[in-house]
Amino acid sequence: MRCSRMFAPTLREMSTEAEMSSHRLLLRAGFIRQLAAGIYSFLPLGLLVLQHVTNIIRDEMNRAGAQELLLPALHPQELWAESGREATMQDILIKATDRRGTKFYLGPTHEEVITDLVRHNIRSYRDLPLNLYQIQMKYRDEPRPRGGLVRTREFLMKDAYSFHCDEASLDATYQKMIDTYKIIFRRCGLAITPVDASGGAIGGKETKEFMLLIKSGEDTVLVCPQCGYAANREIADNIPPCCGVPYEERSGMELGHVFKLRCAISEPLHATVTDENGAETPIVMGCYGIGVSRILAAVAEVNNDENGLIWPMSIALYHVYLLAANPTDQVQKDLADHIYNEQTAAGIDVLYDDRSERVGVKFKDADLIGVPLRLLVGRLAGQGICELHDRKTGVNVDVSGEQVVSEVSRSIANKLPYT
Amino acid sequence: MRCSRMFAPTLREMSTEAEMSSHRLLLRAGFIRQLAAGIYSFLPLGLLVLQHVTNIIRDEMNRAGAQELLLPALHPQELWAESGREATMQDILIKATDRRGTKFYLGPTHEEVITDLVRHNIRSYRDLPLNLYQIQMKYRDEPRPRGGLVRTREFLMKDAYSFHCDEASLDATYQKMIDTYKIIFRRCGLAITPVDASGGAIGGKETKEFMLLIKSGEDTVLVCPQCGYAANREIADNIPPCCGVPYEERSGMELGHVFKLRCAISEPLHATVTDENGAETPIVMGCYGIGVSRILAAVAEVNNDENGLIWPMSIALYHVYLLAANPTDQVQKDLADHIYNEQTAAGIDVLYDDRSERVGVKFKDADLIGVPLRLLVGRLAGQGICELHDRKTGVNVDVSGEQVVSEVSRSIANKLPYT
Repeated sequence: MRCSRMFAPTLREMSTEAEMSSHRLLLRAGFIRQLAAGIYSFLPLGLLVLQHVTNIIRDEMNRAGAQELLLPALHPQELWAESGREATMQDILIKATDRRGTKFYLGPTHEEVITDLVRHNIRSYRDLPLNLYQIQMKYRDEPRPRGGLVRTREFLMKDAYSFHCDEASLDATYQKMIDTYKIIFRRCGLAITPVDASGGAIGGKETKEFMLLIKSGEDTVLVCPQCGYAANREIADNIPPCCGVPYEERSGMELGHVFKLRCAISEPLHATVTDENGAETPIVMGCYGIGVSRILAAVAEVNNDENGLIWPMSIALYHVYLLAANPTDQVQKDLADHIYNEQTAAGIDVLYDDRSERVGVKFKDADLIGVPLRLLVGRLAGQGICELHDRKTGVNVDVSGEQVVSEVSRSIANKLPYT
Repeated sequence: MRCSRMFAPTLREMSTEAEMSSHRLLLRAGFIRQLAAGIYSFLPLGLLVLQHVTNIIRDEMNRAGAQELLLPALHPQELWAESGREATMQDILIKATDRRGTKFYLGPTHEEVITDLVRHNIRSYRDLPLNLYQIQMKYRDEPRPRGGLVRTREFLMKDAYSFHCDEASLDATYQKMIDTYKIIFRRCGLAITPVDASGGAIGGKETKEFMLLIKSGEDTVLVCPQCGYAANREIADNIPPCCGVPYEERSGMELGHVFKLRCAISEPLHATVTDENGAETPIVMGCYGIGVSRILAAVAEVNNDENGLIWPMSIALYHVYLLAANPTDQVQKDLADHIYNEQTAAGIDVLYDDRSERVGVKFKDADLIGVPLRLLVGRLAGQGICELHDRKTGVNVDVSGEQVVSEVSRSIANKLPYT
């Protein structure tokens, strides 16, 4: 991709009062724009990162045996009445009506819709277990949208729902999803803490939240300084410290959630299968969510410096930012063009800054948008040498033109987490 | 993928009164399910085809220099008032309200939202031309949803918008999009007729519709039997036959649309740039739509027989349907397992029917869901030989185990249109 053609409106300064650095930087770097309170457009650079995150999630969910589908966002009001959640979730439901006055809700989550699908299409325990997921926009009427992509009213979510004929089967998938989530977040470059939110005192509930422990997080997590066990404050207040020493209080941003629904939805919706003995039994369910667009905010929040964003290679918009120090110098321009073509052919995602701007402006933009590697073709172009710069460490190395593809490929591979 | 784990609820018969064969077959084969009138879920098999279509569109749009972004579906009511289309499109707008009573429309198309984005982020003619697209759900309050995915209230669309400082630049992109659409539809296996809908008499308007000429189409197209020129009936009624012979009347299904908007949206929204002389000038626009989910219906409508669907290889859910005639025969099972692993490793998308069903049931399902190639491991398994069946032609050939990957790869390549 060539910068001269790219729609990436970067801003030198910010008039906004955005409190989180991720929010400020995603706006400044031209990744997102607000259309209305809590409603954002993803510009090309933001969408690239979003797609890379999505690909990782899809990859790992498929590997875990889940199957992707795509459910509607327009939900008939009756389904929400049937589950009983029309009343309990009323506040966050966005209402829509059609020309006949029929009422719909914009899906804030899809337990009702997917359980309706499954009850009409699955009859026997032989068809279970089943783990179905989608990556789709959700709609929630949040009273206080905040932090850019952190809490919005229209957001991208991966939501999975599993269906079982017994608890043991649910347990196995629940554990598999916990393991899968750890891999997904690691691949996105995030150090996530699984937090217990089981509400031991209450009993029935079993749930884990996947938290990024950062100062700007709006949840409170209690962490045991001895063993690392972490619990949601609401439940931890009810249980004695696990190792005898007091919990430490930390702030966290929730990025994922796994939940044993059991029969909370299947019972009111009469979603049953026949078991081995031919008896009707309610389907046992689990649900598993990841805030996909929130991941962008989270990664941006923990990977930035005073000059801008620093994307992890695994989800970076581009691998390499390429520029010639002086594009009017034919030797420099030829070498940069050659490297661009060669790297693109080798499957390396290169952003080529071919604009007629000063090199200082280009460096600033490269730093701001946070491409992990920068390749400068400058004074040593005549000797076929260019400079490879690491956005994160600031380290520069000279690389010869013949070795640039292999050297960049090696640098990319070194920056990818084991999968 | 193994059939035993797959959520693909096929139906032996249909209770529905669906009139179009594509609609009946997509339901029977477990590709889609209706949630409410004109609102459908894409089950895993349907989503696979949808993703393959999406990939082709993305590939060709990027190749044509367009950039992908993602705009919100929730549109502030004021924007639609500003463009003047709140009144003219009122009938099909689905209304939503938030907790504060603020009014939104669910995006039926995105001229307003993208022009708002561009007017706030583009100032100079130097930033143009720009061609921005997204692949996203649209919402239209259709009075009469029909034909399964043909006309729905929630549907996947590729919508592109181009921005220019003059007519000549718009003309170039408009022509580029026409050429790109031809490639996209050819890659999807569709023989599309570009239909003139320019309304010559009216003047200002310039638009082409991309029609699939089929009996079940709801549009009427007039085609010149001499030169093949095709025009929308509404405009053709006003112009004399191009070659002196009367036009022939054909039915068509519209799958794409290119349109010179010129300043119809940018003027009311005051979206301007400064030109070479520093003067403010309204941005000249084009828009370019493809009905992505409708393509599924169109392809299914023209590619089926009495036994089911027949997907073109380029967008097929899987390349190969693999089965052992008798999976309890260890020789057959071992060879089928071996082929499955080998082909999967070679990047061939194999659906392995490992269910304990009779071979006749498996054949019926393979035909119904329409995988282009079927590979049967049967009596000749002991000699390492299996049978490759072409869903479309019905031709069978024996292939030895060692050659099966190369033979299947060759068959796949032969079935892909030149790109």
